[in-house]
Amino acid sequence: MEPELDGPGRQRPVGRGPKVRAAVLAATLAELADGGYAALTVENVARRAGVHKTTVYRRWRDRESLVVDALAEQIAADIPIPDEGDVETDLRELARRFVGWATSPGGRAVLAAMLSDAVRVPEIADARGRLFQDRLRRAEPLVARAVERGELPADTDPARLIGTLVAPIYLRLLITGEPVDEATADQAARVALAAARAGALRR
Amino acid sequence: MEPELDGPGRQRPVGRGPKVRAAVLAATLAELADGGYAALTVENVARRAGVHKTTVYRRWRDRESLVVDALAEQIAADIPIPDEGDVETDLRELARRFVGWATSPGGRAVLAAMLSDAVRVPEIADARGRLFQDRLRRAEPLVARAVERGELPADTDPARLIGTLVAPIYLRLLITGEPVDEATADQAARVALAAARAGALRR
Repeated sequence: MEPELDGPGRQRPVGRGPKVRAAVLAATLAELADGGYAALTVENVARRAGVHKTTVYRRWRDRESLVVDALAEQIAADIPIPDEGDVETDLRELARRFVGWATSPGGRAVLAAMLSDAVRVPEIADARGRLFQDRLRRAEPLVARAVERGELPADTDPARLIGTLVAPIYLRLLITGEPVDEATADQAARVALAAARAGALRR
Repeated sequence: MEPELDGPGRQRPVGRGPKVRAAVLAATLAELADGGYAALTVENVARRAGVHKTTVYRRWRDRESLVVDALAEQIAADIPIPDEGDVETDLRELARRFVGWATSPGGRAVLAAMLSDAVRVPEIADARGRLFQDRLRRAEPLVARAVERGELPADTDPARLIGTLVAPIYLRLLITGEPVDEATADQAARVALAAARAGALRR
């Protein structure tokens, strides 16, 4: 037995370990790319991964958890959290990496799938919320380091800060359709930092 | 002949005037509510409004312009731009009115239609962008008055300020799924005001 793995999909420990996990998550991403969320089944994921479907259900209670875990790990790999030694650089770099991802073919596919099917498949809205919470959890140390260095008020809320950073980028992507580029990222970082320094992002 | 009407749908002047315009826009909203954007046709709108379809085409070049105009006027009526004498009250009030609309049955229907069909019907993305530009244009005087009163830096960009105000509300509505209420609106207004006062929303 190995220890319970950490992750938003709440999977349980089983034998064989990380290799099964990696194979199943890779199969999930491949199924998503082929047929989208609505067409994805645990059976097809298991077949593609070369494992029995009970092996999948032992770790993930449903396809939503499977998709959240697969996308969370993919996005975490695509958008690593920067640690450059000062909050201004870190926020700008995080915003730039997010913009790079959101405008890449992979990122666009994830965003389109997470939005277009959401009305028909309500669990997608839940998955989207859980993915965002996973991103917040991973970004929290960036804010904690800034507070430790005395760059931000001690009670700065990481969720509010990261939300303020990405909100104007999502606004362009999802609502206004205006171009999203490095300047968008830098402007978003300026606004988030100014609001945090002014104490408008306290808990 | 009456003067050319102002509006994002670029309609041309015709006889009979505002009554035809109001009837056609009301019919457009009714058709939207019944069948959504994808099913809407100029023919059905004309029939419902009791006018010939050439009358519609004389004022609106396509169904996208018709839908943008109809929704722009509806939203403008539902979310009037406040003018309370100080920018803090105005921004908070505007954010609260936007939240009230976005969480009402009518607002939710508009947002769902504007997003869910967008992947299948590309012109919806364009309509969404034009609707947002119409909102910005209507909100510009709020920012101009604040600058005149010396409450904000003279080169504050109205589009950036209003974008910063609504972005975190859209983030909750479209991405995180967290509740959207008066507190969300007030927090959004605090952040937008702090960023503007710090000069982070200059042109």
